[in-house]
Amino acid sequence: MTNEEAMQLALKLAMKGSGYVNPNPRVGAVLLRDGKIISTGWHKKFGAPHAEREAIKNAEIEDFSDTTLLVNLEPCSHQGKTPPCTELIIEKKIKKVIIGMLDPNPEVNGKGVQALRDAGIEVITDVCKNECQWLNRFFTKHIRTGSPYIILKVAQSLNGCIASSTGKSKWITGQESRKKVHQLRSEVDAVIIGKRTASFDDPKLTVRAVEGRNPIRVIFDTELSLPLSLTNFIDSERTKTVVCCKKELEHTRKAETLRVAGIKVVPCETNRNGFIEVGDAISNLTKIYNLSVIMVEGGAKIFSSFLESNLVDELQLFTAPIIIGNGINAFGNLTTDSLEEAKQFSLVYATKTGKDFYIILRKIEKDYYSNF
Amino acid sequence: MTNEEAMQLALKLAMKGSGYVNPNPRVGAVLLRDGKIISTGWHKKFGAPHAEREAIKNAEIEDFSDTTLLVNLEPCSHQGKTPPCTELIIEKKIKKVIIGMLDPNPEVNGKGVQALRDAGIEVITDVCKNECQWLNRFFTKHIRTGSPYIILKVAQSLNGCIASSTGKSKWITGQESRKKVHQLRSEVDAVIIGKRTASFDDPKLTVRAVEGRNPIRVIFDTELSLPLSLTNFIDSERTKTVVCCKKELEHTRKAETLRVAGIKVVPCETNRNGFIEVGDAISNLTKIYNLSVIMVEGGAKIFSSFLESNLVDELQLFTAPIIIGNGINAFGNLTTDSLEEAKQFSLVYATKTGKDFYIILRKIEKDYYSNF
Repeated sequence: MTNEEAMQLALKLAMKGSGYVNPNPRVGAVLLRDGKIISTGWHKKFGAPHAEREAIKNAEIEDFSDTTLLVNLEPCSHQGKTPPCTELIIEKKIKKVIIGMLDPNPEVNGKGVQALRDAGIEVITDVCKNECQWLNRFFTKHIRTGSPYIILKVAQSLNGCIASSTGKSKWITGQESRKKVHQLRSEVDAVIIGKRTASFDDPKLTVRAVEGRNPIRVIFDTELSLPLSLTNFIDSERTKTVVCCKKELEHTRKAETLRVAGIKVVPCETNRNGFIEVGDAISNLTKIYNLSVIMVEGGAKIFSSFLESNLVDELQLFTAPIIIGNGINAFGNLTTDSLEEAKQFSLVYATKTGKDFYIILRKIEKDYYSNF
Repeated sequence: MTNEEAMQLALKLAMKGSGYVNPNPRVGAVLLRDGKIISTGWHKKFGAPHAEREAIKNAEIEDFSDTTLLVNLEPCSHQGKTPPCTELIIEKKIKKVIIGMLDPNPEVNGKGVQALRDAGIEVITDVCKNECQWLNRFFTKHIRTGSPYIILKVAQSLNGCIASSTGKSKWITGQESRKKVHQLRSEVDAVIIGKRTASFDDPKLTVRAVEGRNPIRVIFDTELSLPLSLTNFIDSERTKTVVCCKKELEHTRKAETLRVAGIKVVPCETNRNGFIEVGDAISNLTKIYNLSVIMVEGGAKIFSSFLESNLVDELQLFTAPIIIGNGINAFGNLTTDSLEEAKQFSLVYATKTGKDFYIILRKIEKDYYSNF
């Protein structure tokens, strides 16, 4: 097994922790001897042992002196919820450590590698670095800025419509695309929708098409005008439902009724249009939930607000092979008079999914991705 | 050299006739002996010798008894502008013939193969059939229906805008995309734009970024209101400019002035909105020019009209990685109240081109593609 093959396995193992480990990074580890796998491990949930510790435990051997430990993220060298992994690796006299990327946490960044090298352990870094960085892009932004990574997920027609002129949007894209959306929900801490989407589609916003845990469901309902019969207000997951409303409504009877039902009400500032100020909402939500990654699921008003506030890190575009005339554009509420004002992205990945087309783009020039 | 490799070469040779051979098919031929190339040939322009004849001539040998002739389209068995290729192949005693696809012309379809087999020649068909069919999709529609194949070429933002709210569209997509557009222009018989695009962008509509011949340039200007200073009215290619206007203006002074400048004026029926009836325009243009393939280059009104009239065979979408707020949608003039009314396409091909994304889609269920 080559280093690259073993790293692919580590990344696959790391993925198993998706959602459960947040805001920690997703990490997988493979212990090798003569290129053969002895054991594997992954970080299973927040507060649980790190991947390296799991792989070492699972090896069930005494002598580690001729083993190689491969891990997608630099082992920690500081005391956190668990003791430093570098100490264990040194104590076990592991011969060689192969690392995908350095820890973007400024407190670690290279110190783990240094500690291992100081102990005489051979260290190789940057194996499949791009893929490793991609897997932990949420963690990277969060640890460097304290703010959550924000994804806009848009399901649209070839000509950029997210609904017909009459507001119909179920279903523009196909089953395979929806499965990918459920996968994304299982990875993010929270999903956000607007009032119009909530009342038109009444979506469950849970993870059903794949295995995984449900995210927090946030609804922007400035005037608290949504009916109490909304699925997100009455289903078994309702304690994971959050409503953002304008500050003035914090102590109204409607707010109290929602709270009694187990729903969180988060009062927010409004902008000059009387609509919730998205930056304030994110900041308030982050204080309560320590969110590392959020996915915005629509509609047009919310998409436009996030883009206008320069809060978008990534676009996940699901494009169906259809044309919808005079429909609702995902960003129709945003004003762009000249092409110079257009928001720029760069293509990360594109593939076919069922009959649809799936494209991931990233906002360009985010300095928290550099300096690895 | 395998049959598939030789067919790829034949397709490449065939491409050299792009534009020049219309409405004939693009055909390339490779003559082989023991899997090695003896000679090649391609159909160079309308009325010129067929590819098979070129390859045989270029071989400069006397004895063809142990050669294999490979060609992307079934050799003709009928007298056209040139004598039947099957006769020459039989006369030269070629041993084996390998064919990409049968001739979709109902008058040939299989008869060429039969003539060869009757003469004791071994014939293999359907080598790289899909690619061969794709290369001659224009020819196939035209020979089967008498109507031109119609491509809509759209350069848009991620959210389907072809211009900003103020009408600016130069340049949404990048240089590599524009090069591909010039390639397309060199393959089609005519390009069409609307009055708004003509006055806003004043495009040259010529082939510059690649080698190739210029198409006829058609401008839909219902009221003949475009200024005489328009590039397409005054440049050296102006005898290839055509203006479609409403019937009532056929004998006006403006029409006469255009004609004197060498520009063709084609009077057309108008629809209930007073706009040129696209079906009538295509029919009138086809009578004059025997068009086998047309590319519509915008703007929104023209795109919507063609789609509404069910005249679109193919979409060529160039998508830039930008978001334009409240811009002009390529199909905003089309009415789709429910998702069921949305126009369906199927993805043929997708790739990155520079920073942009390039997708080709095809209208589904066109029966002239079946029955090969």
